Amino acid sequence: MSTKVEQMKWWGWGGENIEFDMKSKPELWPYIKGVLGIEKEVYTPPVKFEEIAMPEQSLNNKFLTTIKTLLNDEQVKTDKMERLIHAYGKSFRDLYRIRRGIVEAAPDCVIYPQSEDDVCSIIKAASECDVIIIPFGGGSNIAGCLEARDSNGRMVVSLDLKRMNQIIEVDQESCTARIQAGVMGPDMEKQLSTFGVTLGHFPDSFEYSSLGGWVATRSAGMQSDKYGKIEDMVISLHMVTPSGTIVTRTVPKSSNGIDVNQVCIGSEGILGVITEVTMQVHHIPECREIYGYLFPDFESGAKAIHECVEKECLPVITRFNDAEKTALSFAYKSKSSGFKSFLAKGVKAYLNKKFDLDKACLMLTGFEGDKKRFNHIKKRVNKIYKKYGAFNLGTDPGKSFEKGKYDFPYLRDYVMDRNIIADVSETSTVWSNVLPLYYAAHDALDKAIRNTGSKTFLGCHISHCYQTGTSLYFTFGALQQPDKGLEQYLYIKKAAEDAFMKNGATLSHHHAVGYEHLPWLEQDISATGVKAVKALKQGLDPKGVMNPGKIIPAETSFQGWGLKEQDIAEFDKNGSSANGEYGKTERVVPETQKTES
Amino acid sequence: MSTKVEQMKWWGWGGENIEFDMKSKPELWPYIKGVLGIEKEVYTPPVKFEEIAMPEQSLNNKFLTTIKTLLNDEQVKTDKMERLIHAYGKSFRDLYRIRRGIVEAAPDCVIYPQSEDDVCSIIKAASECDVIIIPFGGGSNIAGCLEARDSNGRMVVSLDLKRMNQIIEVDQESCTARIQAGVMGPDMEKQLSTFGVTLGHFPDSFEYSSLGGWVATRSAGMQSDKYGKIEDMVISLHMVTPSGTIVTRTVPKSSNGIDVNQVCIGSEGILGVITEVTMQVHHIPECREIYGYLFPDFESGAKAIHECVEKECLPVITRFNDAEKTALSFAYKSKSSGFKSFLAKGVKAYLNKKFDLDKACLMLTGFEGDKKRFNHIKKRVNKIYKKYGAFNLGTDPGKSFEKGKYDFPYLRDYVMDRNIIADVSETSTVWSNVLPLYYAAHDALDKAIRNTGSKTFLGCHISHCYQTGTSLYFTFGALQQPDKGLEQYLYIKKAAEDAFMKNGATLSHHHAVGYEHLPWLEQDISATGVKAVKALKQGLDPKGVMNPGKIIPAETSFQGWGLKEQDIAEFDKNGSSANGEYGKTERVVPETQKTES
Repeated sequence: MSTKVEQMKWWGWGGENIEFDMKSKPELWPYIKGVLGIEKEVYTPPVKFEEIAMPEQSLNNKFLTTIKTLLNDEQVKTDKMERLIHAYGKSFRDLYRIRRGIVEAAPDCVIYPQSEDDVCSIIKAASECDVIIIPFGGGSNIAGCLEARDSNGRMVVSLDLKRMNQIIEVDQESCTARIQAGVMGPDMEKQLSTFGVTLGHFPDSFEYSSLGGWVATRSAGMQSDKYGKIEDMVISLHMVTPSGTIVTRTVPKSSNGIDVNQVCIGSEGILGVITEVTMQVHHIPECREIYGYLFPDFESGAKAIHECVEKECLPVITRFNDAEKTALSFAYKSKSSGFKSFLAKGVKAYLNKKFDLDKACLMLTGFEGDKKRFNHIKKRVNKIYKKYGAFNLGTDPGKSFEKGKYDFPYLRDYVMDRNIIADVSETSTVWSNVLPLYYAAHDALDKAIRNTGSKTFLGCHISHCYQTGTSLYFTFGALQQPDKGLEQYLYIKKAAEDAFMKNGATLSHHHAVGYEHLPWLEQDISATGVKAVKALKQGLDPKGVMNPGKIIPAETSFQGWGLKEQDIAEFDKNGSSANGEYGKTERVVPETQKTES
Repeated sequence: MSTKVEQMKWWGWGGENIEFDMKSKPELWPYIKGVLGIEKEVYTPPVKFEEIAMPEQSLNNKFLTTIKTLLNDEQVKTDKMERLIHAYGKSFRDLYRIRRGIVEAAPDCVIYPQSEDDVCSIIKAASECDVIIIPFGGGSNIAGCLEARDSNGRMVVSLDLKRMNQIIEVDQESCTARIQAGVMGPDMEKQLSTFGVTLGHFPDSFEYSSLGGWVATRSAGMQSDKYGKIEDMVISLHMVTPSGTIVTRTVPKSSNGIDVNQVCIGSEGILGVITEVTMQVHHIPECREIYGYLFPDFESGAKAIHECVEKECLPVITRFNDAEKTALSFAYKSKSSGFKSFLAKGVKAYLNKKFDLDKACLMLTGFEGDKKRFNHIKKRVNKIYKKYGAFNLGTDPGKSFEKGKYDFPYLRDYVMDRNIIADVSETSTVWSNVLPLYYAAHDALDKAIRNTGSKTFLGCHISHCYQTGTSLYFTFGALQQPDKGLEQYLYIKKAAEDAFMKNGATLSHHHAVGYEHLPWLEQDISATGVKAVKALKQGLDPKGVMNPGKIIPAETSFQGWGLKEQDIAEFDKNGSSANGEYGKTERVVPETQKTES
């Protein structure tokens, strides 16, 4: 086991030396500037590390003394850089603050356990010494799960599990893999591939998120249509709590009362630390290809997906962009883009005849399996898509997608350097409500953005399809007003969540509750549902050792969330004169979509 | 809404006037007698209703007065027949006792709520008056979930939900149906069929079990390979607890912290009453057929199923009998059986050449779907089966199966009338452990049965297949020793559960914990897992109103289970001289399988 772990940069996404490659995408920045009406660029870089003042460090000597008898010195870190890296996740709110040197809370110490025994010892010592533990995987969370809240002067330890990164065993016959929870996506897949298997879980955060983090937050990967959401893949697990370790059995299904796996899944660190998980894995498929299709509009594509679900021929990946998100995708085109064939003059002219390109929507569809299944599904899907007027763009868009599928968070850093707010809000709903919710949430987000005084970038994609419904994933951008960026963001975020709640959707399909989604939890799971969660907390963590302030709402749910009533009133006031109707947003068509007519 | 409900007979399975049709199956009773070595039949009918002495009735007048202001008089029953019908479920232990007039516990009152509001009022009154509530659906449970245990003199109410039997709404586009939890299987499917949909959940108990019961016990239906286990089909629900009503949102998937649906599913009435559930439903499939196949042995069939799973072409039903269960199936042959063609002399001679019919195993395989999917899967499955040496028996065995698929519990009543112990024990495990577990559990059960002084009937079938594993379902029979039937049964049951635990399986795949599986719960979900369940109980039902004595083990887990140490010792002693090796059981071949060689 290597003790060296890679951390993301404290001020943004990904490894220290990786940044978004804007140069190779000559149309993207002009496109974004056009949409948001940016005439003069304002450069807003992060502060320097040296300029950041950390919160006072609360060190509990009894705890540290105990811990140091159990662990190696180098497993325990108290320096500024470690504290800063573990202070926040990567939500817009987190990055907005840390880039300005605003560190409202940070762990006092970071500990790197190397075994489940280490974790048990640390939690035992924490319980005895009134210390707080916050489990930390990749650090990619965007719901505020990692922030040291409600510590009230107690020492806070960020428990970084990255050294617990081994595949313990793979049962190739049963397709199960017992895996330490701290392993990061790419490392895990690399280890699994030596056994000829894959987990098939590829969230957008894949490169910088961990198995334990996925399980603790009910993550979804871009191939969930085939492989399921993470909660569907967990066969058994170990979770160390202050009241002992939960260990479940490696069996496919059971009727052993309340499913204890499900008590641990989604617990976001408030009950304990997930140390290992036995996951369902899959043999690496024989065939795999991703195709692009252009649909006449959002409605036709949504219907086509639904028909694939109904006909039981859902592909492995279905990622369907609305018109705005399609425009953004096309603006991503690199100099050496695989889109060339599609963009050939002849094809463009043809498409222009068949489609209103302002409304056209890009579908990315991945097929996988042995040759027979691959061909069977592909043939059936193509037939359905055709019925809804789709134009098959071949595999070039899929290749571009594969190449850039983990890039989006880097783009956010790029635009945050340039005074732009960019984030996402996602949810899920049943099929009969997909379009009504899409219109309503789109309207609400668009109106909210404009109320903050910015032009709107607002796109949406459908992904993660189920028999009964699908997720809707909104991506939004706005121009920051001087010193109002965070308030703007929170106002827009609130508009999204309020719209989800009002329109029968859920607070998040796969981004967790943390504290950023707390104000909507009771509406989502009911007051008695919240009591159930509180009961588990009280029973397994009576002293409040584990990750306080997350999932369980305080009495006044909106308190502490960060947005003042007066900010809301101020933005609302702007809105009274603005036009809030859906569809009235000015739309900028990127160069690649402009055609000679 | 009709206020008339159908109840099962108090002393056995099914409606009052339905009994097992042994006459039409001329080979079955001779076969059973042969296996168990019965020379002289001993007739052991149930006692008469009038002979039964009920436990003292504890009526809480304050509660009854309150309730009678809220409900109609005819919703509240306190007569002997109602009390008796609601005293037990249908486990062997339950039937053994009730047939002998042993009613160790019974509810003092039976209430039939007609709405969720009724349920809320009843639970509120029960909380205020220190009354116990036991939810009651169809009454088919075989794990002791329904028995009034640990009441300590408090009044016990059996809350019979059968009048809450309406489909509230069906969203045909999203394939969801909102259904009152008290509806029984056939009534529910009849109502759903008017919308062109089906739940696709057909447990063996289907005719006499309810939606709420299925959800509360994590039930599995015989088509679970396609439709999932009940916990996979629940989209949202309402559960009334003494601390309020849990209401979740109708969305396909969420990341809203710990999944509150999953806290209610499997809670076996200890937290509250499930009043309605929104279920995933399916359009009624275009094509459906069930085929029979004969495999050379258990191992080849198990491998064939596993290959179907791996190749992603699992049928809708896979029910694979081992050799003993196959013999029982063939003994089921009726006078006018569809097996005729298979049994034609020519085919028999052919089979006798190809197979050792003592080892041959019957597979029942159901295909469903639109024509394309139906044909695609059928073709692939047939190819795989052929590879493992299967002989296709056509659809006749499937037709027989469809006709008699809910009959088995009636047969148990028939044999219990004739001094025979008959019951089931089922579990699940991963594929790599299927055969080792099968051998080990078979050995343990066989040995235990023989230790009780009986010859053995012991069969097993595989059903409920998953990517990582499958369930193993053991059916056993033994001859009762004078006045030792219950001890024999418990000794055999203990051997099964011990074997499951020792061999990495679960205490039950779909029959719940109740109190009959309690001694094995901690081994299954760990001591800290039990703490999690206790925490939920403490948080949602602090006064212990709901179904006490279930799921949560007492300090001494084996205490109160019913088997004394001296009984164990006595049976064990018999065993020291018996031969406990697997495969040594004497096997009786039914007439239909005997061939001219």
